[in-house]
Amino acid sequence: MTKPAPATDRAAAPLRDDGGAVDALIDALRRLPGVGQKSAQRMAFHLLQHDRGGAEQLALALHQANLRVRHCERCHTFTEAPLCAICSDATRDAKLLCVVETPADQAALERTGSYRGCYFVLQGRLSPLDGIGTRDIGAAELLARATDGTTEEVIIATSFTAEGEATAHVLGEALRARGLRATRIARGVPIGSELEYVDLGTIAHALSDRR
Amino acid sequence: MTKPAPATDRAAAPLRDDGGAVDALIDALRRLPGVGQKSAQRMAFHLLQHDRGGAEQLALALHQANLRVRHCERCHTFTEAPLCAICSDATRDAKLLCVVETPADQAALERTGSYRGCYFVLQGRLSPLDGIGTRDIGAAELLARATDGTTEEVIIATSFTAEGEATAHVLGEALRARGLRATRIARGVPIGSELEYVDLGTIAHALSDRR
Repeated sequence: MTKPAPATDRAAAPLRDDGGAVDALIDALRRLPGVGQKSAQRMAFHLLQHDRGGAEQLALALHQANLRVRHCERCHTFTEAPLCAICSDATRDAKLLCVVETPADQAALERTGSYRGCYFVLQGRLSPLDGIGTRDIGAAELLARATDGTTEEVIIATSFTAEGEATAHVLGEALRARGLRATRIARGVPIGSELEYVDLGTIAHALSDRR
Repeated sequence: MTKPAPATDRAAAPLRDDGGAVDALIDALRRLPGVGQKSAQRMAFHLLQHDRGGAEQLALALHQANLRVRHCERCHTFTEAPLCAICSDATRDAKLLCVVETPADQAALERTGSYRGCYFVLQGRLSPLDGIGTRDIGAAELLARATDGTTEEVIIATSFTAEGEATAHVLGEALRARGLRATRIARGVPIGSELEYVDLGTIAHALSDRR
């Protein structure tokens, strides 16, 4: 155990009696995002009762991922080699650099199949209230990467949340101060939406950004 | 890996590039109940990006639980000793035996603090459509346990779902055929409910079971 387990809701404990392996498993499962006491219990019981093979597979996968997965030296996404597949791909357009918050966002962009440039993956987004500043998200590494002489345009694809917008603003200013062209992906009405059900801020932006 | 990973939704893949440790982790996380592709991705990224210690803790807890957790010889709940704490507790009323579907249900009953008898934990409930019969849920072990000479009343506390009710019916018949007193926990209106919002079947039962 590398960190102490989070305090568990003792009102909803104790399920084990003498040892603590079930409780330890429930505590560990609760560290997964979106998993509370009840879900963790259900997961632990399911694995122990019906899927011991799955438990062993998960233990191995966690250990292997911890051991082998690191960040790409150029774009900071997850990879097991020094350079990720996209950064090693000579057919990608090195003049375009798309900035995303997470490898998941990068994967979503890749799945569209409509982008052939390079990426830079931040370590999340700015969140001053949580003490997450430019240093924590890797802004300096982005600036170093963007000013390496090949990049002509930086497309900022952070989320359209307050924190994502703040991150986009800060990074955009810093990039423009270094003479780079920084653009932002478009806001607008999602495909398949009926206007009636779209929030007013989005409609207002879709109107002002019309083309 | 003790079992092959389930087929993943390849439309929502590929996140990794060269190796496969991230994908293997996502596949393994998807074996948890209630976890789909998106949640598994989010969990994997969270662990790799922000909580490597949590990943190692979970790997260890899974491995330890797999290694140490077994079923109590008397009541079949999870334990790390041959007998669980409740079965080893001489102050529990050996004349009462409460039958539940899972260790989680047993834990819920224990938390009420209103039951001081013993338990028998089934391996789930009857589900003929899924091929789960009396043999799979441990009915024979229950009958052996209930006819050991100390039990006077078997309280059947399976769920009030169709499958839980069928299980209760089958077990009740078998127990009564062996001259044992088999009772069922009460159906009725949950505490805190307004009648208006309670389903009609429950109200009908609460009426007929009035006391």
